[in-house]
Amino acid sequence: MTLQQAKELQSWVPIPNDSDFPLFNLPLGVFSRDGEAVSCGTRIGDTAIDLSALQQLGYFDAIDLPDDVFMQDTLNDFIALGKDIHRAWRKEMMVLFSADEGRLRDNEAHRVDALFNVREVEMMMPVFVQDYTDFYSSKEHATNVGIMFRGKENALMPNWLHIPVGYHGRASSIVVSGVDLHRPKGQQLPADADAPVYGPCKMMDFELEMAFITTEGKPLGHRIKVEEAEDYIFGMVVFNDWSARDIQKWEYVPLGPFLGKNFGSSISPWIVTLDALEIFRSNSPEQSPQPLPYLQGKKDATFDINLQVDIEPQGCEATTVCRSNFKYLYWSMAQQLAHHTVNGCNINAGDMMASGTISGPTEDSYGSMLELSWKGTKPLTMKDGSERKFLQDNDTVIMKAHCEQDGFRLGFGEVRSTILPAIND
Amino acid sequence: MTLQQAKELQSWVPIPNDSDFPLFNLPLGVFSRDGEAVSCGTRIGDTAIDLSALQQLGYFDAIDLPDDVFMQDTLNDFIALGKDIHRAWRKEMMVLFSADEGRLRDNEAHRVDALFNVREVEMMMPVFVQDYTDFYSSKEHATNVGIMFRGKENALMPNWLHIPVGYHGRASSIVVSGVDLHRPKGQQLPADADAPVYGPCKMMDFELEMAFITTEGKPLGHRIKVEEAEDYIFGMVVFNDWSARDIQKWEYVPLGPFLGKNFGSSISPWIVTLDALEIFRSNSPEQSPQPLPYLQGKKDATFDINLQVDIEPQGCEATTVCRSNFKYLYWSMAQQLAHHTVNGCNINAGDMMASGTISGPTEDSYGSMLELSWKGTKPLTMKDGSERKFLQDNDTVIMKAHCEQDGFRLGFGEVRSTILPAIND
Repeated sequence: MTLQQAKELQSWVPIPNDSDFPLFNLPLGVFSRDGEAVSCGTRIGDTAIDLSALQQLGYFDAIDLPDDVFMQDTLNDFIALGKDIHRAWRKEMMVLFSADEGRLRDNEAHRVDALFNVREVEMMMPVFVQDYTDFYSSKEHATNVGIMFRGKENALMPNWLHIPVGYHGRASSIVVSGVDLHRPKGQQLPADADAPVYGPCKMMDFELEMAFITTEGKPLGHRIKVEEAEDYIFGMVVFNDWSARDIQKWEYVPLGPFLGKNFGSSISPWIVTLDALEIFRSNSPEQSPQPLPYLQGKKDATFDINLQVDIEPQGCEATTVCRSNFKYLYWSMAQQLAHHTVNGCNINAGDMMASGTISGPTEDSYGSMLELSWKGTKPLTMKDGSERKFLQDNDTVIMKAHCEQDGFRLGFGEVRSTILPAIND
Repeated sequence: MTLQQAKELQSWVPIPNDSDFPLFNLPLGVFSRDGEAVSCGTRIGDTAIDLSALQQLGYFDAIDLPDDVFMQDTLNDFIALGKDIHRAWRKEMMVLFSADEGRLRDNEAHRVDALFNVREVEMMMPVFVQDYTDFYSSKEHATNVGIMFRGKENALMPNWLHIPVGYHGRASSIVVSGVDLHRPKGQQLPADADAPVYGPCKMMDFELEMAFITTEGKPLGHRIKVEEAEDYIFGMVVFNDWSARDIQKWEYVPLGPFLGKNFGSSISPWIVTLDALEIFRSNSPEQSPQPLPYLQGKKDATFDINLQVDIEPQGCEATTVCRSNFKYLYWSMAQQLAHHTVNGCNINAGDMMASGTISGPTEDSYGSMLELSWKGTKPLTMKDGSERKFLQDNDTVIMKAHCEQDGFRLGFGEVRSTILPAIND
């Protein structure tokens, strides 16, 4: 489908003008009503749609779906069915909700069963994540951090231009938008001190990232080639890779970040499929030196996705502190996944792979407080006049992502979470 | 129970003299028969015991167990029940299988249903691992690697004596003993080269480790204190942290090991509980400087477990290349777990946390080929006269672990896996 065709797709469900969720989007999520009744769902405009209800009402009879696939508290089973089924479902949904299709539109009893205002549902973690990987694929971010910690000459490590550098993160502490997190405690080495101290993190930061969710992969020992990698990517979410900079700095040599990260990561609740993003495909940056053959993929391997980070101090209006774009990333998702599996590492449906901080070329496009305040030397001013080098207790961080072209918008909604004071235990 | 009492515990199940599995052990595992009929089980001598069969026959009626808890293909549900239930089960088993208890001993029909020769069953992964962490807790290993890569003066990183350094690993590629792995491929930087090359790993290594498996933890944001940490540890296995040294060396700066490790890790199939290991408790090494208060635990925080690594070239007798001991580790499991959760990171039943390579003070106690062959400068001689700097294709690595005191032995069996040639895809 072209951008023009997507734009012309009208639904009988009302869609506000600035909505991230036109009929062409059809993101997947999991929600509950009244704290019970959990099911898989999608969203059109401000309407949350219960897919298990639609299936029980017979609307998916033409698709080869297991009876209970949407009656789950995660999308893993649906994701594991593979792209042919995902596409058959998507096609069916576009017909069922198109403006001139009356089957559901004109059946009030069915609509009452399956359609809800998004304000009436509570979004939950959309997938069970067995394994979570975080990449480090923004050249601007890696360079900025390198300059701060090692100086201009050694900013980029020798491997960085050859490898989509990544590391394993903690899956158990990934939470959905709306779940607030406590400021972590841990060891930090104060400036000029000989020995570490213990206490609440003093350099609390976010990292603006996106993550992709994989489908079922290949058996252990087999690789996913770069040219087939997108077939194994179900969709994407916005990802806040919370970072405790002082804890991270003291612990990370030589085995990488650990407690500076694993107290929590936050994701947006709706998974936007690659099929929905297809019309916003974009070229990746030129790669020089040319990567090794197993990493050489197509040029238009990324997507034009606008990103924004707001900080909302308690009781105060939000201030936008960063505007960036997913297409700035040096390494594509296909390259990341090809690299991840080139040694035979297996992947599963529901695995999450985050991009690394997405910083752009300008100072207002840096994707972390570390870079925005340049290690605390350039505080940011909030709308209430207060300053931020890093995050304060009760600050809420909101990340948003959307694509827009020729007046047609499609997006992810947001991931929002508040940093609560450290627990005193 | 004391060592003497454990020793006196006789069973009506025959137990060979050198067996790792006296009645006092009662390790937990999962096995299948005829490639089907999967269930949770334990082992006495060379007898595998089907626990779901015993439960269905009514032998656990006095314990508050869910009906299907042993009819699972993992032990996660049983582990999540908590230590009180584990101990009630253990007590019941010790009675049921003690020499003078006739209920099962004298019921042939029941014995046929529940008892099998271990050669008739196939051991499977005992737990579903959502999250896997690898520590780096042997001072000897960290020092050896530090000397090789950074010289004697900078051998230990400044944080090492303050932090049980650890990092996240890949859970999906942990496999049980008997599953062979293919030599991984990936990027390596040849000596004196400017650019990396791609191909099969040339420095294939093992790492002798043990891992503990956690019970259900606390909610996100709350920590497990060092003095309560052992309550959250279910048991232990032997762990081979396969390592592709050339891939690891080129990729690991600055975010840690990734493809050099995540192609596979191998574990022994029987989880030995801390309750069984209790009688082999031992003091950890002195810690200087004293760690921060949140890491200060009891002195006897470790266990005296003999470890051994054999290499078996194809068609040749095995050669023992390393003898070490779990008690050499500088940081205890309780300290590792207290540190892991001090920032509020949550854990789940079935999480796996490996120790890091367990090297001892002498050259024949080093737990990796990297150290044993000192970076390839001192090849090891096999019994067939061939030499090894690192592992060759079709080499089998066998790791064994057992405790022994006053003639009483209790152990883990082994983890055995062969390195097959790289797959040409």
